[in-house]
Amino acid sequence: MYTSGFNSKIMTMKKLAVGIDLGGTNTVFGFVDREGNILGEDRLKTIQYDEIEVFVAALYEKIIITGQRIGNSIEIVGFGIGAPMGNINKGTIEYAAGIPWKGIVPLAEIFNKHTELPVLVTNDANAAAVGEMIYGGAKGMKNFVVITLGTGLGSGFVIDGKLVYGHDGFAGEIGHTAIRPGPSNRECGCGRKGCLETYVSATGLKRTLLKIMADSNQPSELRKLSFEELDAEIIHNAAKQGDYIAKRAFTHTGMMLGFKLADVVAHTNPEAIFLFGGLALARDLIFEPTKEYMEENLLSIYKGKVKLLPSELSSQNAAVLGASSLVWATKEG
Amino acid sequence: MYTSGFNSKIMTMKKLAVGIDLGGTNTVFGFVDREGNILGEDRLKTIQYDEIEVFVAALYEKIIITGQRIGNSIEIVGFGIGAPMGNINKGTIEYAAGIPWKGIVPLAEIFNKHTELPVLVTNDANAAAVGEMIYGGAKGMKNFVVITLGTGLGSGFVIDGKLVYGHDGFAGEIGHTAIRPGPSNRECGCGRKGCLETYVSATGLKRTLLKIMADSNQPSELRKLSFEELDAEIIHNAAKQGDYIAKRAFTHTGMMLGFKLADVVAHTNPEAIFLFGGLALARDLIFEPTKEYMEENLLSIYKGKVKLLPSELSSQNAAVLGASSLVWATKEG
Repeated sequence: MYTSGFNSKIMTMKKLAVGIDLGGTNTVFGFVDREGNILGEDRLKTIQYDEIEVFVAALYEKIIITGQRIGNSIEIVGFGIGAPMGNINKGTIEYAAGIPWKGIVPLAEIFNKHTELPVLVTNDANAAAVGEMIYGGAKGMKNFVVITLGTGLGSGFVIDGKLVYGHDGFAGEIGHTAIRPGPSNRECGCGRKGCLETYVSATGLKRTLLKIMADSNQPSELRKLSFEELDAEIIHNAAKQGDYIAKRAFTHTGMMLGFKLADVVAHTNPEAIFLFGGLALARDLIFEPTKEYMEENLLSIYKGKVKLLPSELSSQNAAVLGASSLVWATKEG
Repeated sequence: MYTSGFNSKIMTMKKLAVGIDLGGTNTVFGFVDREGNILGEDRLKTIQYDEIEVFVAALYEKIIITGQRIGNSIEIVGFGIGAPMGNINKGTIEYAAGIPWKGIVPLAEIFNKHTELPVLVTNDANAAAVGEMIYGGAKGMKNFVVITLGTGLGSGFVIDGKLVYGHDGFAGEIGHTAIRPGPSNRECGCGRKGCLETYVSATGLKRTLLKIMADSNQPSELRKLSFEELDAEIIHNAAKQGDYIAKRAFTHTGMMLGFKLADVVAHTNPEAIFLFGGLALARDLIFEPTKEYMEENLLSIYKGKVKLLPSELSSQNAAVLGASSLVWATKEG
């Protein structure tokens, strides 16, 4: 039914979904087939576009050029976009921090000025969860959760084989649940204090590292680096080499994550929880304390039953795959 | 297809479900039609039966007698049982505190020694959630949560029109999520410390009252009563008469509930949260602080959107209705 302008004259066409990973700095997209093969991809700098209309026009043009490069024998079936605070019900991005456009951005509506094809918007972690279900380690699972550990902390819940959107389209958000009642000390990008994201994310790891560095007298090579010079990879490498403060920072990060994952288990009783993204690459350094503190906070009926697994979408293309899979998931649902 | 022994000779029969509310002290049951009318009911003392087989035999006999009393023109379509730690997948009660039988109790299996009709077991709060959906304030809602405030704290989640059971059948449990990381001071019946139930329940309210009484110098008539003499109704009445300590106890209880409900909202983004049971009868005393602290802990995208409502299943029969509704929900799902 739907065909896009540049392939409508072709008779036998390969059906492809366009997956778009819209991030604060870069936007990456790819043409993905039903099996998860990426046939062409490109990117542009989100940060260079103050106007959302100009950004979408530039993005759409790049998509068309990339499609033409793949060849004439393709048919686009839809566009899936993973974006911070993306809302599936309304096709919007709402009050996202770290992107150039403020307030409620009617992304799908603007996109549909260029195409009549379906445009699906959801948050990037939800897209990752659908990707994990279709292409990754959650194949065949009906109840699981994906946690994305990047600059921030995202999450997507799947219950009974379906992504949970909730009544307003914003379900599955653990990054902005609070660690304890009352005013906590860490300021969050969302304007509140004490959100899990301020502890469990690349930035959270750095903040924890500084706190431990302040409290402890242990020597560390990391004392030579400024807050801005530090990143998760540097802390990871230091921890692997036995740096006490770096190891403690990972343990504390896992402790906070495990504590809140216990709530996720009590609420949704998943078969598995997948960790995805930069921090998850630290493997045992993050998985062991997370598992330990999750189990410690579980009621006996749940203990030892929930698998804590690394995402199998470990390539750089995971976000694009996840976003494209929204299109297939919707076509089947 | 299924008919029970005492009505198989009848030609035109009214279809009824038997709803059973199995509690630690009493077990109450009723014959309920599709519209939620209770045609007959009775009860027995759970606490008097050390042996589960003897209990089930006595319960089944009482059910048959009650059925005969209603008349010959009925057909039982199934038995729905709400019980603490009831598991829908296995028909079991698992490691429930406060009932006479320890470990894993194969309740449906024992019940099916007496009848070949379907026997559905789930936890009492899940049963209340299904009851709210079929007969109460959640009619027509697809995403909502029911919180039952009794001696303990139960909860049931409905997502996309279906009760959430999760992978192992134990989803929707907020009572045993913890208030803060690390060892908290309140011991819970589950063997751990700091569970929400130790703050938000009739018992939790009493514990909070004692703590405030210890910390404060304010006069209170409640200082004349022992811990064992106090109950939620007495504290409620004192608060209504302006007792400072009683009012503070309600505020603190609502604060803890609101804090954790914010997590429930972030996880499942419901349209409404219903409060059911004894404490919910205190209305503004509990609803106002709960709403305030829930909103305070919500990310802006959720603020002001989630309704906090009293259950409309306010009769004493709610638990029986809820349990019976399991049968209808299953027949339709």
